[in-house]
Amino acid sequence: MTEIERLIQLLAKLPGLGPRSARRAALYLFKRRESLLLPLAQTLAEAGKQVRTCGRCGNLDTVDPCAICTDAKRDGTRICVVEEVADLWAIERSGAFRGRYHVLGGNLSALEGMGPEELHIESLLARLGPEGVREAIVALSSTVEGQTTAHYLADRLSESGIEVTRLAQGVPMGGELDYLDEGTLSAALSARRPMRDRNA
Amino acid sequence: MTEIERLIQLLAKLPGLGPRSARRAALYLFKRRESLLLPLAQTLAEAGKQVRTCGRCGNLDTVDPCAICTDAKRDGTRICVVEEVADLWAIERSGAFRGRYHVLGGNLSALEGMGPEELHIESLLARLGPEGVREAIVALSSTVEGQTTAHYLADRLSESGIEVTRLAQGVPMGGELDYLDEGTLSAALSARRPMRDRNA
Repeated sequence: MTEIERLIQLLAKLPGLGPRSARRAALYLFKRRESLLLPLAQTLAEAGKQVRTCGRCGNLDTVDPCAICTDAKRDGTRICVVEEVADLWAIERSGAFRGRYHVLGGNLSALEGMGPEELHIESLLARLGPEGVREAIVALSSTVEGQTTAHYLADRLSESGIEVTRLAQGVPMGGELDYLDEGTLSAALSARRPMRDRNA
Repeated sequence: MTEIERLIQLLAKLPGLGPRSARRAALYLFKRRESLLLPLAQTLAEAGKQVRTCGRCGNLDTVDPCAICTDAKRDGTRICVVEEVADLWAIERSGAFRGRYHVLGGNLSALEGMGPEELHIESLLARLGPEGVREAIVALSSTVEGQTTAHYLADRLSESGIEVTRLAQGVPMGGELDYLDEGTLSAALSARRPMRDRNA
């Protein structure tokens, strides 16, 4: 097998790329040897060496503990519990949260053999006291597994007496009502809020 | 910018990947450091060093001239003219051609400033005599630019007295008639062939 075939085979393993798009990507790379192929090779090698999992929260960073865990400007009394690093990044992009994080590493799932021991739950509980956490925001998927995990977590977390909250459910921005599923609509209805404060 | 952000930025430049899928690919890579990230870094670096353009036909390979140009079992009297290396690979996958190739590097296009000098036409004409080429198969896209280029090439090639052919046009395998465009249908109709030989 030549390096070309080997490269196509590896590229095809990336999510979002199949055999055909991997071939296209490989040809694209060969046409841009200096501007893309070599920088990508270099960056992958560097990232492979430098990027590690934060031993405290499970984020990925070139330092451990990660930049979020050591940022003194962040509110250490609030911790946002997410499934994966991708979710942490998504919340960071929203810019709406200035506390810290904890990556569970998945959800409880009997089918996939994911029990509480497979998730980073003990390390989460161990952080609460030492870091003075007062609120845990459970930001898990709105799926059966996510909500099962959220309920389990809420039980475990409330033992330590901290406040446990979860993300609001409702109509997403730009969401058109007749394209929304019934579950979202009924959640949005039952959590409806006054348009103006009657006492104002 | 950390190595993570830099990697995402480079991945997002690949065709078929946008910012969102580049983030997903980066996380996927970090989860598979040994099995995918490091092999990919290594293979990219190797490919960047070893893969070059064949000075004879324009194919990509780790040797120059490429393995197709030096394969004595291939029929050197037939040369298939394609736009890009991707087209050469596509014809090779079909397994239907055992001759040699010539990569033009694009099509004539007044809009994109592609004149005959921008394409590898002179090097094609220079191969005909020394390699004893008897047939040139013009395998260009069935677009306006492709057909303009094909006609120009046919003129130039026929000056040397060799046979010039082009790919057949018609109904693609699995093609349903009412999804086909009128151009394809009328080409397939006018090139219709007897279902059995009447003299058989």
